[in-house]
Amino acid sequence: MDRDIIILAYSGGLDTSCILKWLIQKNYDVVCYIADVGQNDDFEKASQKAKLIGAKDVIVEDLREEFVTNYMLPAIQMGLVYESRYYLGTSLARPCISVGIVNAARKLGAKYISHGATGKGNDQVRFELSVYSLWPEGKVIAPWRLPEFFNRFQGRSDLIEYANKENIPVAATPKAPWSTDENIMHISYESGVLEDPSVIPPSGIYKMTRELAQTDDYASIIDITFQKGLAVSAQIPSGQEKALIITDALTLVETLNKLGGQHGIGRIDIVENRFLGLKSRGLYETPAGTILHEAHLDLEAYALDKEVLRIKKYLQDKMADFVYNGFWFSPEAFYTRKCLEMSQESVTGTVTVQIFKGSVSILARKSTTSLYNKDLVSMDIAGGFSPEDSTGFININAVRLKEYARFTAATKKIK
Amino acid sequence: MDRDIIILAYSGGLDTSCILKWLIQKNYDVVCYIADVGQNDDFEKASQKAKLIGAKDVIVEDLREEFVTNYMLPAIQMGLVYESRYYLGTSLARPCISVGIVNAARKLGAKYISHGATGKGNDQVRFELSVYSLWPEGKVIAPWRLPEFFNRFQGRSDLIEYANKENIPVAATPKAPWSTDENIMHISYESGVLEDPSVIPPSGIYKMTRELAQTDDYASIIDITFQKGLAVSAQIPSGQEKALIITDALTLVETLNKLGGQHGIGRIDIVENRFLGLKSRGLYETPAGTILHEAHLDLEAYALDKEVLRIKKYLQDKMADFVYNGFWFSPEAFYTRKCLEMSQESVTGTVTVQIFKGSVSILARKSTTSLYNKDLVSMDIAGGFSPEDSTGFININAVRLKEYARFTAATKKIK
Amino acid sequence: MDRDIIILAYSGGLDTSCILKWLIQKNYDVVCYIADVGQNDDFEKASQKAKLIGAKDVIVEDLREEFVTNYMLPAIQMGLVYESRYYLGTSLARPCISVGIVNAARKLGAKYISHGATGKGNDQVRFELSVYSLWPEGKVIAPWRLPEFFNRFQGRSDLIEYANKENIPVAATPKAPWSTDENIMHISYESGVLEDPSVIPPSGIYKMTRELAQTDDYASIIDITFQKGLAVSAQIPSGQEKALIITDALTLVETLNKLGGQHGIGRIDIVENRFLGLKSRGLYETPAGTILHEAHLDLEAYALDKEVLRIKKYLQDKMADFVYNGFWFSPEAFYTRKCLEMSQESVTGTVTVQIFKGSVSILARKSTTSLYNKDLVSMDIAGGFSPEDSTGFININAVRLKEYARFTAATKKIK
Amino acid sequence: MDRDIIILAYSGGLDTSCILKWLIQKNYDVVCYIADVGQNDDFEKASQKAKLIGAKDVIVEDLREEFVTNYMLPAIQMGLVYESRYYLGTSLARPCISVGIVNAARKLGAKYISHGATGKGNDQVRFELSVYSLWPEGKVIAPWRLPEFFNRFQGRSDLIEYANKENIPVAATPKAPWSTDENIMHISYESGVLEDPSVIPPSGIYKMTRELAQTDDYASIIDITFQKGLAVSAQIPSGQEKALIITDALTLVETLNKLGGQHGIGRIDIVENRFLGLKSRGLYETPAGTILHEAHLDLEAYALDKEVLRIKKYLQDKMADFVYNGFWFSPEAFYTRKCLEMSQESVTGTVTVQIFKGSVSILARKSTTSLYNKDLVSMDIAGGFSPEDSTGFININAVRLKEYARFTAATKKIK
Repeated sequence: MDRDIIILAYSGGLDTSCILKWLIQKNYDVVCYIADVGQNDDFEKASQKAKLIGAKDVIVEDLREEFVTNYMLPAIQMGLVYESRYYLGTSLARPCISVGIVNAARKLGAKYISHGATGKGNDQVRFELSVYSLWPEGKVIAPWRLPEFFNRFQGRSDLIEYANKENIPVAATPKAPWSTDENIMHISYESGVLEDPSVIPPSGIYKMTRELAQTDDYASIIDITFQKGLAVSAQIPSGQEKALIITDALTLVETLNKLGGQHGIGRIDIVENRFLGLKSRGLYETPAGTILHEAHLDLEAYALDKEVLRIKKYLQDKMADFVYNGFWFSPEAFYTRKCLEMSQESVTGTVTVQIFKGSVSILARKSTTSLYNKDLVSMDIAGGFSPEDSTGFININAVRLKEYARFTAATKKIK
Repeated sequence: MDRDIIILAYSGGLDTSCILKWLIQKNYDVVCYIADVGQNDDFEKASQKAKLIGAKDVIVEDLREEFVTNYMLPAIQMGLVYESRYYLGTSLARPCISVGIVNAARKLGAKYISHGATGKGNDQVRFELSVYSLWPEGKVIAPWRLPEFFNRFQGRSDLIEYANKENIPVAATPKAPWSTDENIMHISYESGVLEDPSVIPPSGIYKMTRELAQTDDYASIIDITFQKGLAVSAQIPSGQEKALIITDALTLVETLNKLGGQHGIGRIDIVENRFLGLKSRGLYETPAGTILHEAHLDLEAYALDKEVLRIKKYLQDKMADFVYNGFWFSPEAFYTRKCLEMSQESVTGTVTVQIFKGSVSILARKSTTSLYNKDLVSMDIAGGFSPEDSTGFININAVRLKEYARFTAATKKIK
Repeated sequence: MDRDIIILAYSGGLDTSCILKWLIQKNYDVVCYIADVGQNDDFEKASQKAKLIGAKDVIVEDLREEFVTNYMLPAIQMGLVYESRYYLGTSLARPCISVGIVNAARKLGAKYISHGATGKGNDQVRFELSVYSLWPEGKVIAPWRLPEFFNRFQGRSDLIEYANKENIPVAATPKAPWSTDENIMHISYESGVLEDPSVIPPSGIYKMTRELAQTDDYASIIDITFQKGLAVSAQIPSGQEKALIITDALTLVETLNKLGGQHGIGRIDIVENRFLGLKSRGLYETPAGTILHEAHLDLEAYALDKEVLRIKKYLQDKMADFVYNGFWFSPEAFYTRKCLEMSQESVTGTVTVQIFKGSVSILARKSTTSLYNKDLVSMDIAGGFSPEDSTGFININAVRLKEYARFTAATKKIK
Repeated sequence: MDRDIIILAYSGGLDTSCILKWLIQKNYDVVCYIADVGQNDDFEKASQKAKLIGAKDVIVEDLREEFVTNYMLPAIQMGLVYESRYYLGTSLARPCISVGIVNAARKLGAKYISHGATGKGNDQVRFELSVYSLWPEGKVIAPWRLPEFFNRFQGRSDLIEYANKENIPVAATPKAPWSTDENIMHISYESGVLEDPSVIPPSGIYKMTRELAQTDDYASIIDITFQKGLAVSAQIPSGQEKALIITDALTLVETLNKLGGQHGIGRIDIVENRFLGLKSRGLYETPAGTILHEAHLDLEAYALDKEVLRIKKYLQDKMADFVYNGFWFSPEAFYTRKCLEMSQESVTGTVTVQIFKGSVSILARKSTTSLYNKDLVSMDIAGGFSPEDSTGFININAVRLKEYARFTAATKKIK
């Protein structure tokens, strides 16, 4: 009798290796799926390990360009920031990986998809909501939420014992005292010693960015060009670096990551609200993402109409929640994304950015689609504007305020 | 016959000095009002100049503590940021000064208030809406909007000519190639050579903060304590600086300004939307304000319930617009402010902040009123949380998404 | 050994009677709790039935006044309408009942609370979220979500069979072809033959309100008085009815229900979105609630400042979702409710309402706290308003529009 | 020397007739523009009067179809309701008329446009903002805001005296004790005796709709079909009326106006907030608009995803303000309108509406694009839904609430 095929999102780590074995023992044909979204892993070694453990097949898929083009840069275009600070590096990778794994599941005729995410985190939600949206007839198996599994493996030592017993290679290096998620957009650090928000994180935790004290002593200048809100190129004039023009999306992000990392750009240490109702503390470093977000924010304010900007702001705050919560493929996210994209019609131009000592400073911006009118605003030019009109404008705005003041005799109460 | 008393918001500069003379020639008894909101001016010299020109009296009022206590710190408590970047330093000073000048007008039995703000800017609006709210029976005279005045004084040279003719002392120093507004919270720079958003500002423009390249090579650590969202004290441990505990609001802001200035904290260069519908470019430096805003943002995310945070966010964006547009004393601002203050009941605690090389980094935070529960979020503790519940949570959230996917056969269209 | 006490929300119907027996057989001491929120039930008969089945005790609590005073009238004060049409009659009763049952559980030292709500509906969520908020250490047992129970009782016939076997009296009357929820605020009708939204509901379904064709041929006039947004009295002038002044909250609602029912007020037939992601069709009749909501809406628009009204509107839409979804006792609902109440400071006055043939018509309103100023608005009185100011107001508002028009040459594209 | 051409929005009434003469005396060539938006006027008579007074030419343009197709039905599609009650009948007509008059001005090489709107109302704003958006190089002359004019004509008697002197025919009928604005969508009544909100309006004021007591004693049933949110046809089954299928937009509105009028549909009496900051009382009757809005609201709730509905709701409230305030041709309205239209992709289907005695009752609705799934919601069918999942969903939602309850010991404070 044929065994059911299950696709396992595999990392090569202890958890998913044990899950792989456990699923095989549960009589599944397990195909491991490894998405390369830019994390610094040895995919070849992970593949071999999976095969050694007994995976029927291993798929390694390079999703970096897909991730940058269809998730990271659109998120910057939309201006997505979760709870005012987090650029959603992990949240954006989940739907991207889900597309890859669902495509694999469909192609191989799999009935199930499995993953190693735990039961308290956001990633299980993001991953599964994406999978179910893309593959409503599919079924996700999450061992860390199955009593049979989580009762058996109550701690890391249970996993190691099982690994030893089943001849699963265990890395000699001890587990880091926190967990990380890494992709081309960012690295996150959470849990373990970081769980106490009053504890200053150990130095040397960050991997993509230098400590401020060790950053270069010169500033780098970058001209970043956007078309309809999407970053399309960067130009680095000849300075300390070689003059450079980049137009490829993946290279753009890689270059800004490198440069931003050198200058210590993009670290945050926050407490955030998970979708499941918990608060959790996370550290993130997002060098290229931070530079691009700051540049985009500047160009957008320059180009967009004042009132359109406000409606767009409302929509972007909603969209950030949708994405954080795992609803990238929901009706509301499809709709809101289209609205947000539509707002970016005129967000075309170039922003000159200086990065230095952890700071992104906007120096200048150019756009042929901006509504900015130098003559109109100039104090020295009267064009199109009568000072007397301002009197009427103020007086009419004051009508309601005077009424209110008279009515409440507010003046007496106002300090 | 008695002449009508008019109170003139006086700075000692060329514009308000000419206006002072002009009002006297219009047969008013002019009392000059100089508000000290922390700008670096010689108030004694300005007073003498006013009297020399013919002011009936000069009032110099120290509003610094009032400004810090009732405007700046509440704005940080409310989280007010205009168009995602501007901390409203000028906008907050206008209502504060308006209270002072209206009190003077009332006390002196004045019928009019006058000012030197021009007809295209925000400040005329903020100033007059505040005055009319506080003093609905009063009347504002804005010479720069009166044809009789602005037709006569079409440029700086007309003012200088008039000053010379009327024996008004004119400063030997040439006019700066931009205009500034200064108070204890910030300095703004705009117009003149800054009007072209594509021009990189001249170096050396900033006065409160050092260039990043000239900042100190050590980091400063500050513990900032908030009670119900209001900054109440700062503690600077013994490091490069002397150990220090500050509990006085004014000293707190002055100290953070000095320290922040040394570390190059709080510069922005933005294009913003004025209330009158124009876009304008402004540079701002807000050292203490930036440090306090970042610290407050962190504590708030830590302490507040997730959903309360979202409603508060909506309200704070509205309030920032009200304040920017000059509606500090409006019914909507009174109401929204009360709502925002109410949201801060549990925002009590201490944030450890590092300032260094232009960056504000949050290192840690403590609060006895935070909803953060380390045990709940810990991956190693099961307390109060069943992994199986997450399955139900995800599945129920997926019901709507699956329906949508089935209905639209969205899977085919999704990349 | 002592048996654990469980409190069962009991109705006397087939479902909860079977659940009662089943819980007894599961070795619980079951205390039945019957909340009187105004539904037309025979509580004495239900009590006897519960005791006959084996309940350890039965508590019947009259919550009508509590419900009207602390839930229904505040909901009208807050302006709560779900998805633009539904006045939340059922949603509001759940937290009220939850308080009653939790108080009973605490008093009796119970460990569990149980109910007969099914697994697809909103009420299980509202009930349990309220219970857990009020009693976080408690535990809810929902038999309809336990496989052991729902696999055994797969349809009504299984319940009847069980009832017959266990000597549980079964009503001779057949089950209605739809389900209802009734309280003093409304009756809802859903499921069964109503599940198909394209089917016109059978005539005669409604119980609180007459068919329009059978309503009285005269109009009734009512003066309804609000204090700070809360309905405090109604006056019915001598017309077809006896002249009447009502100041008791419960009597107010009862009287308006009776009068509204006679005039056919307050029926809706809608498709709504449940919290669980399903769409469902419901019919509701809310006579007093509809009259009070319309009157309150009118007074509020009359009394409130324009911009406060808009912020309040945003908050009320959020609050309606919180209440519908079962979050009455959540941090966000506590906060939003306080904000909404604060907005009602000036919503004091009297609205004259005509009810007739299913329509609520506002005839007039009076308020000493309204910002309405007849002289200001009058076309015949110039007071406080210069027509020339309007020119300036319009011209300044046009600056941005003209810029946009010029820039986009929008005029060519505009039809 | 050639005289400048000015286009006057002309009604034939006393005000615009006097303005016509006055403009001629000011040495303009005046072309009168009369827009037929469905008001019950004698356009031929008005034309002759204009010519008699001295108009260089008179243009009468039938804009009814344009108004219905491009303003009224899209407003219903967008769900525009101002301050929860007003369907914007007048606000929508202004931009439509503005397009007509600007086209005329362009064609005739006019430099000016003039109108008879007064200085306190909304219509001057709507009219002029529309004109300036469409014709930024143009100039509007509003005599009622010119001191030369409003000082000369301080009341109606001054106008009559001038008319008599200048041989302008004056209607024998006395001025109505209120003012009205009429078009195919609605008639508004305001000012005069209506200015006091506590006065019950005189009976017999309404013209499009019958008094409830005089409506027919049978109900009419109408099936209204929408495509992507736009009303495209109505079918009236054979009942008291002849069976009828209407697919022409103008006829649709006319028919529903007639039928709605017979049944007394669509009257409101409200106090609203004008853009200029005043509160004013208005009566409106909008028979067809009310029927169509109610039907659209029902279909939309049926067809749209829950979360999309909420975002759309936010946008529609913003758009209603834009339209009321005169910003139909603004960047924000163009943008928001596109977003709103995009939300309506699936709002296609048919709603069965009963109109009777002033009430619009929804009886049933059909749509092949609705997300409604009868099987999913049915209590008798388990499909796609596990009751156990609801437990997890509730428990996870309760995590945050329990935390809050524990933390605040809220249970003690909650009533």
